[in-house]
Amino acid sequence: MIPDTSTETVFTYGSPALKFGAGASDEIGFDLARLGAKRVLIVTDPQIAATEHPQRVAEQMAKFGVEAHVFDGVHVEPTDASLRQAIDHARGSGPWDAFVAVGGGSSIDTAKAVNLLTTNTGELMDYINAPVGAAKAPAQPLKPLVAVPTTTGTGSESTTICVLDVLSLKVKTGISHASLRPTLAVVDPALTVTQPPEVTASSGMDILCHALESYTARPYDSYDRKTPEQRVPYCGANPISDMWSEQALRLLCRSFRSAVRDGENVAARVDMALAATMAGLGFGNAGVHIPHANAYPIAGRVKEFRPPGYAVHEPMVPHGMSVSLTAPEAFRFTFSARPERHVRAAELLDPTADRPKDLADFLPAMLTELMQDIGIPNGIGGVGYTSSDVPDLVEGAMKQQRLLATAPRPVTDEDIERILVRSLDNW
Amino acid sequence: MIPDTSTETVFTYGSPALKFGAGASDEIGFDLARLGAKRVLIVTDPQIAATEHPQRVAEQMAKFGVEAHVFDGVHVEPTDASLRQAIDHARGSGPWDAFVAVGGGSSIDTAKAVNLLTTNTGELMDYINAPVGAAKAPAQPLKPLVAVPTTTGTGSESTTICVLDVLSLKVKTGISHASLRPTLAVVDPALTVTQPPEVTASSGMDILCHALESYTARPYDSYDRKTPEQRVPYCGANPISDMWSEQALRLLCRSFRSAVRDGENVAARVDMALAATMAGLGFGNAGVHIPHANAYPIAGRVKEFRPPGYAVHEPMVPHGMSVSLTAPEAFRFTFSARPERHVRAAELLDPTADRPKDLADFLPAMLTELMQDIGIPNGIGGVGYTSSDVPDLVEGAMKQQRLLATAPRPVTDEDIERILVRSLDNW
Repeated sequence: MIPDTSTETVFTYGSPALKFGAGASDEIGFDLARLGAKRVLIVTDPQIAATEHPQRVAEQMAKFGVEAHVFDGVHVEPTDASLRQAIDHARGSGPWDAFVAVGGGSSIDTAKAVNLLTTNTGELMDYINAPVGAAKAPAQPLKPLVAVPTTTGTGSESTTICVLDVLSLKVKTGISHASLRPTLAVVDPALTVTQPPEVTASSGMDILCHALESYTARPYDSYDRKTPEQRVPYCGANPISDMWSEQALRLLCRSFRSAVRDGENVAARVDMALAATMAGLGFGNAGVHIPHANAYPIAGRVKEFRPPGYAVHEPMVPHGMSVSLTAPEAFRFTFSARPERHVRAAELLDPTADRPKDLADFLPAMLTELMQDIGIPNGIGGVGYTSSDVPDLVEGAMKQQRLLATAPRPVTDEDIERILVRSLDNW
Repeated sequence: MIPDTSTETVFTYGSPALKFGAGASDEIGFDLARLGAKRVLIVTDPQIAATEHPQRVAEQMAKFGVEAHVFDGVHVEPTDASLRQAIDHARGSGPWDAFVAVGGGSSIDTAKAVNLLTTNTGELMDYINAPVGAAKAPAQPLKPLVAVPTTTGTGSESTTICVLDVLSLKVKTGISHASLRPTLAVVDPALTVTQPPEVTASSGMDILCHALESYTARPYDSYDRKTPEQRVPYCGANPISDMWSEQALRLLCRSFRSAVRDGENVAARVDMALAATMAGLGFGNAGVHIPHANAYPIAGRVKEFRPPGYAVHEPMVPHGMSVSLTAPEAFRFTFSARPERHVRAAELLDPTADRPKDLADFLPAMLTELMQDIGIPNGIGGVGYTSSDVPDLVEGAMKQQRLLATAPRPVTDEDIERILVRSLDNW
């Protein structure tokens, strides 16, 4: 029944099971026991470990007959070295029946790599995306992985990818396979209440860009027809990812500023946790594009910038911040490919806003206003880059062809250069 | 972190992976091979087998190294006897690495039972819901089940339940467990083009009632707090099921009448297939209530009615039709519990409609107008029931306490009686 057309007619959709709400993280032992797990490794980072959330998750498991051990050696922004260390630890202390990641994207991504390399033979490089690695598909099924995000932004609980820096090559790349997707996402807004306002702002921009990028992504049915072997988890904008993105935008409209202003506002925290989940379910199937491609070198080549509100000992640009800095100019560039989408997104973000004379300016202006309100630095200049860094950043962004292929129009070096130069300051 | 409240704060959400679009059913062999399956049983009914869809699905599997056998003995509206026959066949001809259901809800539900009873020991009655059966939970994991719906309505591809008639007890009941949910739903609108208009109408009413019932269901956070053991797949209306329901209603608004009028209208068929999928993902987590509870005895106690457009040799009321016949009066009854929901649903179904003076009449009037347009019989009288049958129907509906518990207000015998009497004719 293959239809007589050279363009794609099929889209795919996958998601973890979900348990959402205050108190949800107290039941993980029950869910793991039902999956047959008896001995479980909890994967987290030292900062999250200090909140005692992972310890609490470990303790409640005993009630359900599940033995849990905590590994708190996750590196924020995982590297090949940090992943190897986590894998060595898990291989040395296994076997494990299941894994639980408690933390942000770094913990969840590390747990994905640990799951892959404790259930399958070989080394990290065998599975890393080509051309950096050998892009091997796992031969054996993975164990159950429960993701418990403690920051409202990552979306990693919904995706099939593990992002890492390969230190020797100075390149950010990933491992991507459908079997990496967590089995269950446990989203407990109560775990996010301690998030400082700066973290809420930055990770909220990540949610927003997930929603906006997948909503404006190249539509699945504009690609050439794929064989089943050619299908990838990120298949372009489709009716299901559109719906998640729209709903995430509505929730952000209602609660983003309130959650930054008052972290104790529980209703706003619940909305943000739900928005993060929904945007994750959307982009986890559609994909993201230019702002995320630019974010790789913006975060990866950081100079001296140290973000307020983050307890870090080295320079860093938080992921959500790095994504947001070129978003206004990226969406000005993509406007012409899908104008109605960009207008609709702006209207979902603020139904009361007046349309500007130049509609291409609608979404960018709304984003810069929001970023000023919530304290995001002013452009890539605000995190320490100057125009002399642009060629270097262009080169880094252009390496992310997997992401740029999801942009709604072709993207050249010159396009990225123009976007970066215009993003040196955003206001 | 359990919050200090006696009402529920947690909802759950599960779904199959999804492959959607014309041509999707040509790739099932690839997906099964990736899951490690080598020998697969295709479960279907004789009428669907006559369309050769199951045979075509079996043949393409060989390309991917998967050996497929077709069992075409599914009984439309499965009974304990028909399920036992299917299970015996599968046990006798196994072992099977995976199952593929091609057909409507009957084929998918039969495949769920076959999967359960070929991976777990015991008999059908061990797993059937209490008090009819022993409601045992499966001790062993099930095999992958791929559901390929050929009618746009069932939703069974998204749910955790298998519905059956227990012949000796003259009762319709089910088996319900999270592990029964299909692994993958392959929704290929090209398979639905041959559906006659009467089938499109009836199964479309099923989609519509899935969306309306889950949208108006009792909200998850109005129940008492549950322990993890007490959680059920149907947890009441929640922000995710609401979103699916709303989107299904928008698609039905756009394409239901067109799909009935012109079955060759491919865009309308795609919309209906997507609406069925989305409504299934909604009610598969929220649940359905009064119209579905009433449908059990309306279909189960059928007298002489034979539906036009259905190739059947015995009296029957098609499932979607049986659900729809009391829907207008059911939603008039539930209106007071969640008025804003009922109004919003009507507006999604027809954004151009004027609000009537009595808002309780808004949704019922819209439903009866639609049913007249698409040729649904006029009330339960239209399928052969008279007022003297009502007590019998009330008794049958009140047995469906699992469904009635999802209604947005308590439901007594007298309430059901009033709904049935008023539904003897709907216009």
